[in-house]
Amino acid sequence: MLRQIGFIGLGIMGSGMAKNLVKAGYPLNVYNRSLEKAEGLEKIGAFVAKSPKEVSARSGAIITMLSDSPAVENVILGDNGVLEGIRKGSVIVDCSTISPRVSVKIANEAEKKGVEMLDAPVAGSKRQAEEGTLIFLVGGKKQVYEDNMQILKAMGKNSFYIGQNGMGSYMKLVMNMINAINLQALAEALVFGMKAGIDPDLMVEIINSTGARSGGSEAKGKSMIKGNYETAFALKLMCKDMNLVREETRNLDVPTPTTSIVNELYTMAKVKGKSDLDYSVIMEVMKEMAGISQKQ
Amino acid sequence: MLRQIGFIGLGIMGSGMAKNLVKAGYPLNVYNRSLEKAEGLEKIGAFVAKSPKEVSARSGAIITMLSDSPAVENVILGDNGVLEGIRKGSVIVDCSTISPRVSVKIANEAEKKGVEMLDAPVAGSKRQAEEGTLIFLVGGKKQVYEDNMQILKAMGKNSFYIGQNGMGSYMKLVMNMINAINLQALAEALVFGMKAGIDPDLMVEIINSTGARSGGSEAKGKSMIKGNYETAFALKLMCKDMNLVREETRNLDVPTPTTSIVNELYTMAKVKGKSDLDYSVIMEVMKEMAGISQKQ
Amino acid sequence: MLRQIGFIGLGIMGSGMAKNLVKAGYPLNVYNRSLEKAEGLEKIGAFVAKSPKEVSARSGAIITMLSDSPAVENVILGDNGVLEGIRKGSVIVDCSTISPRVSVKIANEAEKKGVEMLDAPVAGSKRQAEEGTLIFLVGGKKQVYEDNMQILKAMGKNSFYIGQNGMGSYMKLVMNMINAINLQALAEALVFGMKAGIDPDLMVEIINSTGARSGGSEAKGKSMIKGNYETAFALKLMCKDMNLVREETRNLDVPTPTTSIVNELYTMAKVKGKSDLDYSVIMEVMKEMAGISQKQ
Amino acid sequence: MLRQIGFIGLGIMGSGMAKNLVKAGYPLNVYNRSLEKAEGLEKIGAFVAKSPKEVSARSGAIITMLSDSPAVENVILGDNGVLEGIRKGSVIVDCSTISPRVSVKIANEAEKKGVEMLDAPVAGSKRQAEEGTLIFLVGGKKQVYEDNMQILKAMGKNSFYIGQNGMGSYMKLVMNMINAINLQALAEALVFGMKAGIDPDLMVEIINSTGARSGGSEAKGKSMIKGNYETAFALKLMCKDMNLVREETRNLDVPTPTTSIVNELYTMAKVKGKSDLDYSVIMEVMKEMAGISQKQ
Repeated sequence: MLRQIGFIGLGIMGSGMAKNLVKAGYPLNVYNRSLEKAEGLEKIGAFVAKSPKEVSARSGAIITMLSDSPAVENVILGDNGVLEGIRKGSVIVDCSTISPRVSVKIANEAEKKGVEMLDAPVAGSKRQAEEGTLIFLVGGKKQVYEDNMQILKAMGKNSFYIGQNGMGSYMKLVMNMINAINLQALAEALVFGMKAGIDPDLMVEIINSTGARSGGSEAKGKSMIKGNYETAFALKLMCKDMNLVREETRNLDVPTPTTSIVNELYTMAKVKGKSDLDYSVIMEVMKEMAGISQKQ
Repeated sequence: MLRQIGFIGLGIMGSGMAKNLVKAGYPLNVYNRSLEKAEGLEKIGAFVAKSPKEVSARSGAIITMLSDSPAVENVILGDNGVLEGIRKGSVIVDCSTISPRVSVKIANEAEKKGVEMLDAPVAGSKRQAEEGTLIFLVGGKKQVYEDNMQILKAMGKNSFYIGQNGMGSYMKLVMNMINAINLQALAEALVFGMKAGIDPDLMVEIINSTGARSGGSEAKGKSMIKGNYETAFALKLMCKDMNLVREETRNLDVPTPTTSIVNELYTMAKVKGKSDLDYSVIMEVMKEMAGISQKQ
Repeated sequence: MLRQIGFIGLGIMGSGMAKNLVKAGYPLNVYNRSLEKAEGLEKIGAFVAKSPKEVSARSGAIITMLSDSPAVENVILGDNGVLEGIRKGSVIVDCSTISPRVSVKIANEAEKKGVEMLDAPVAGSKRQAEEGTLIFLVGGKKQVYEDNMQILKAMGKNSFYIGQNGMGSYMKLVMNMINAINLQALAEALVFGMKAGIDPDLMVEIINSTGARSGGSEAKGKSMIKGNYETAFALKLMCKDMNLVREETRNLDVPTPTTSIVNELYTMAKVKGKSDLDYSVIMEVMKEMAGISQKQ
Repeated sequence: MLRQIGFIGLGIMGSGMAKNLVKAGYPLNVYNRSLEKAEGLEKIGAFVAKSPKEVSARSGAIITMLSDSPAVENVILGDNGVLEGIRKGSVIVDCSTISPRVSVKIANEAEKKGVEMLDAPVAGSKRQAEEGTLIFLVGGKKQVYEDNMQILKAMGKNSFYIGQNGMGSYMKLVMNMINAINLQALAEALVFGMKAGIDPDLMVEIINSTGARSGGSEAKGKSMIKGNYETAFALKLMCKDMNLVREETRNLDVPTPTTSIVNELYTMAKVKGKSDLDYSVIMEVMKEMAGISQKQ
């Protein structure tokens, strides 16, 4: 019989992931701060708990998918939190993108209760969460990773073991700093080309046919030139991740001039009230800077 | 019978391109400043001219593939240059990456002689030149482009018509600014991950499996972490192109903060004596900045 | 009779400031982590306490002058800390440069004990501390500031009331971000001029005679071109302050592109092992970047 | 008897300078593209010429004060230009801020006619031009500088001999890059402080009382916080100078990351239509970026 799984955080990503666990046959105990988000899962058989503590009391593995470090700290370490209900020998799998040093801190607290933890942030966004094609970047003990790989497989197409606790979180930041810069590169180049008079659609077609392509240009190039910024990954989350990158690069003494400038530019977009749009909305900031009217 | 073609500039790129023209059956007249580079082509049947003027006197279409704007101006407009020998009704196809405004200036001079010009810089580097799989980005009159497409097909797998004279050159700059920034993003991220303790090979594997991939990461990620910077596209040429981008973004009043910072970082690499290595050598600059010893 | 004053933190700045309090006639209770630094003050009449708690138990006003936020938190809030010994109605004056949000947090903790707090970081470095010509930037209740102005006068030539708790700390960050950038501007310009062939001494003379002058160019221009980086304000402290600026500009959503780049450049200097030298050592980083040999 | 002096370029700066030459007793021949600007000088006794050629035909020393490199090239080297009318043994003193390499080129052309040239750009703006308190930064032969120092003294309070032709122009760029960055530093810091809640007037007062002061903060700090950007030195001219800096730093291979970012930020201000305002209008760009409404 499959272990009972707990799942905390039923946002855009979490609800897709939780459904895939139900589909895979896992008995699921869910919790979300606003309970209405849990209704869809209740209908397909999940038990809706009243607190993270109740989730952990009923489950052998607890997955968290939350917005930031304070949210994860609160849910796991706080009052009525996961560590209050959890049984010795259980495992916590945090799929949120948070500070690597907070990952390590939480893992240390969990260990005091005889509980293992994995940091397992994901590559992929809404669609991949729904289709079960996420990629997990895992930090923690290798044996713990291997013991729980089956659960990850229910939600994703692949997983990589990166190293000890916190290393999954570091790898996620490595990826998101590339994602942020590559998209900024695209935006600056498109705006330059537009001012030179090149047809934007043609530019995107050529970029995606050549070495100038990137995951970002392929996924978002066409929508960016249409001014369509429907959220796959919200600007405010990219800002949060870039701020984490800067904290960690300062902590590790790694000069990263390009990352810093891009962090500033995304902050500008945030100030302009674009927080909840897709982070490709940086295109609008660059257009405005260059004096190109908003929607062409 | 095929027209006689002239080809001027037999460097890494040009010699591959010229050979493909011979293979396609075109009678070829070549010129290179240092004559020994023409020997390979002489052996396979090309006529080696003593000046650009002699090339143009013998050819109905003249292709130039040179290092920078002054070289192209000199070969076409200078003493014993292409415009001195050329016949009315001929066409010049400049495949060099040069200033769009110089492209326009040369086209205007050519027009005074009844000669058409296309700016047709290429996407692709050494391998694509040899294999005949370049992509041409073409500026000039559309009819002229269509009339000469056959020649481009002999050297490449595809071509895009961008617009009037100079537009091919602009499109090339758009692409190279993306290439430069995407590779810088990769270098900063890899160095950050290395200092955090992640295995560099694993990082490249993950990046290339996810949305963080780019044409650059796929082509150069593995060699960068090995410290292998064998030249596909020399740093000094990327510096030249980034300087052209800077000139043009100032001329068109397009703020490009990320591009500017990356231009500074490539300049640092140049100062460190890396001019003739592949531009992915920016990795070494970032490693040194972060205090990671050169070759791990 | 004058109140007893406590003074915690007898580093380069603190020892000068404490001596001026003794000279002004205040009975002084001092504490420093390494006791030998307290000897000079013991000789001129100060009482050397064994803990921050002992200092606060004996004093009506307690001044702290420490290196960073964690040090201040530890000394005031920690075991055997100031708040353990302090009497209701006393005042804490923190002259350290720390996070404004930590200033506020400590003020709130102090208030629970019926104790007032001022954040009063200083403009000026070693010489001004010794000569008693510091300038204090004060946050806290205005009445508390006025009640304690006499103490500040014993150590400085002027003080400014900025606003509620934390505002003194913010003002200090405002100043240090200017100091950091102005000196970086000078370094970039001098290196450019040197490569153009201008005599560096002449450059500094001209800069200091014109609108291009700054507090930094006047204080450090001549020593920078001599390669003399004797510490007035250590690079590592400037890095700490720039990191605080970065945290606060992210928290308040203020885009600061220039500050960010300068933060990266100072980080480079830190990686190169220059932490304990004066922050004007950024000159060496710029020289190296430009390929100018270290000491000319 | 004093030599006849020619003066070409009667803009904001030039008209003040020319008047001071008349006051000093020099017979003056002036030329300006739009003749009405010459009226004021005609009234006080200057001869108004119809071309630069006519100016140089009548004068032993010709001063030019024009907006940019093309204007100077045109006036000196162009049709009806200075070199057409000039007598052997005369001297040209160019006080414009132009490309150092254009300075050298013009000096070389002048030399072919037996004419000496000095590049002598100025520190100071409108007020200093009127009051005759400019500072000249002089490139050219030292003897030529000394022979013509009297003329400079009629217009300024001081002059510095920097070195051979072009070196005066380089020194001017060195100064303006500092001016641009120092003012940007001030703007970023003021905006940060404003968002933190500090009174802007108080900030400027404190900055100007401490090491954070600069020539820029003293001259423009108070007007910047009032939103008063009356032109002393137009943004478009600062943009032009920063573009020259970037050309020259690329030509000399000097990495200047801060300068580059500041160049981008001034370009943003230019795109926003602020070209003719004082360059301190960068304050408005920073306020807008931070979401602070234009005029508080």
